[in-house]
Amino acid sequence: MPVKLLRVGAPGEERPAVLAGDGRVLDLSGLTGDIDGAFLASGGVERAREALERRELPELDASGLRVGAPVARPGKVVCIGLNYRDHAAETGAEPPKRPVVFMKDPHCVVGPDDTVLVPRGSTRTDWEVELAVVIGRKARYLESEDDALAAIAGYAVSHDVSEREFQLDFSPQWDLGKSCETFNPLGPWLVTPDEAGDPQDLRLTLAVNGERRQDGTTADMIFPVAELVLYLSRFMVLYPGDVINTGTPAGVSLGKPDVPFLRAGDTVELEISGLGRQRQTLAQA
Amino acid sequence: MPVKLLRVGAPGEERPAVLAGDGRVLDLSGLTGDIDGAFLASGGVERAREALERRELPELDASGLRVGAPVARPGKVVCIGLNYRDHAAETGAEPPKRPVVFMKDPHCVVGPDDTVLVPRGSTRTDWEVELAVVIGRKARYLESEDDALAAIAGYAVSHDVSEREFQLDFSPQWDLGKSCETFNPLGPWLVTPDEAGDPQDLRLTLAVNGERRQDGTTADMIFPVAELVLYLSRFMVLYPGDVINTGTPAGVSLGKPDVPFLRAGDTVELEISGLGRQRQTLAQA
Repeated sequence: MPVKLLRVGAPGEERPAVLAGDGRVLDLSGLTGDIDGAFLASGGVERAREALERRELPELDASGLRVGAPVARPGKVVCIGLNYRDHAAETGAEPPKRPVVFMKDPHCVVGPDDTVLVPRGSTRTDWEVELAVVIGRKARYLESEDDALAAIAGYAVSHDVSEREFQLDFSPQWDLGKSCETFNPLGPWLVTPDEAGDPQDLRLTLAVNGERRQDGTTADMIFPVAELVLYLSRFMVLYPGDVINTGTPAGVSLGKPDVPFLRAGDTVELEISGLGRQRQTLAQA
Repeated sequence: MPVKLLRVGAPGEERPAVLAGDGRVLDLSGLTGDIDGAFLASGGVERAREALERRELPELDASGLRVGAPVARPGKVVCIGLNYRDHAAETGAEPPKRPVVFMKDPHCVVGPDDTVLVPRGSTRTDWEVELAVVIGRKARYLESEDDALAAIAGYAVSHDVSEREFQLDFSPQWDLGKSCETFNPLGPWLVTPDEAGDPQDLRLTLAVNGERRQDGTTADMIFPVAELVLYLSRFMVLYPGDVINTGTPAGVSLGKPDVPFLRAGDTVELEISGLGRQRQTLAQA
């Protein structure tokens, strides 16, 4: 039985939960204090799956409750830049020969519908819908793409919000424009690989104020998910709960001079097939 | 009374402690489970100081015990590149007009004398002695350098180990060559600002196999500590327990074609005046 994990409640007070096939939210609190690296590393997803199959989980009244990021306190957020040919082209970059790897402050991870703050002084806050990979098993010098896929706990929708002036003009290194407060909505769910299906056959869309801006497919990734996890494991150790943002397709504001950047009051809606939807309203920091 | 905080014991089992003026190691376990962001945020340093002054802390037999990093699980490690004019020059770069900001996987943080691993496939593993700033108070859109200094819990010696091929040739973004396993020895102590003295008047030295390679002073920083913390707080939120590596002076292997990179069996010794010494032996990953 496939599993969709989530966390519901106020920031810092989220309860672990499972989304049942019939749409009910079931409480995982009896099984774990939280959905985090320790839970994933200790076979938590399997325990949740078994409890779900045995119908042991009580229903949780989630109506009106905020949804948090589906993983608490990721140890790191690794990002892959320019991983779709059309996005590389729109930014004026050559398709990279190796994955372009940078990082985001893991504190930026917030819930899928939380307010996103336009940083003070920002004039170029931009959107990026991305497939996030959540690591479930320590990955160190992996030897094959099969091993890489086995290290994945699941997938989620990720919004890799980016401030282009901070990212590109203020520092030759991008992290500065990627690490602003609230810049990484994640979720709503952590979807297990059996439920998500082929990670290279997912449609990603994003709209700003109701206008479609991005519409891509993970089939167009230059470096697919299994290759990315294998590659990264040869340079750094990936731990349970770590998040990898795998890049964005074309359609960001940076690539379109006639499309305005984000301002307070704007809304952004993101969706990846089978992984759910996000909706954020922008506000001034 | 100034305070030097440390953590002693096996990896993952460190006990919090204080180094007394007479060299004895005093047990902080009665006061806190660990020295981490929550401890720093809740006035833990002051509580440790008071307990020390009241001579309430029992001695801990630290002989033979490993010293860990003085802060458990930093939420992020922010690094400042090219922050000394002589180092910028030796790498062929212009002195930057704004701080160059990148990040390191916080999982890389290890104890000051732990083994450092040369990554598989590495031919250019390099050293960098740096002054680390540890944040003690949430810092968000700070308004002055005084506020920035008030947000600092203390200082520590940091070794920003770097793989130059991964950093410079494999990705235009540096994080890949900065985030390898064990690449950030930190400590031995977290030294409070009153004990450390002027952060812009500290001598930093580093030797490889007994040969002095770096010998600098924080007086030569392009962007001093208070300016860095103030600057960063305008782009990201700094949280208690976060670490900032403030850059390295000249003398790295990258800048000297006749000086070999690190290999298994090499030893590196680092020291910053008043902040203690580190000594690592290199091994193959």
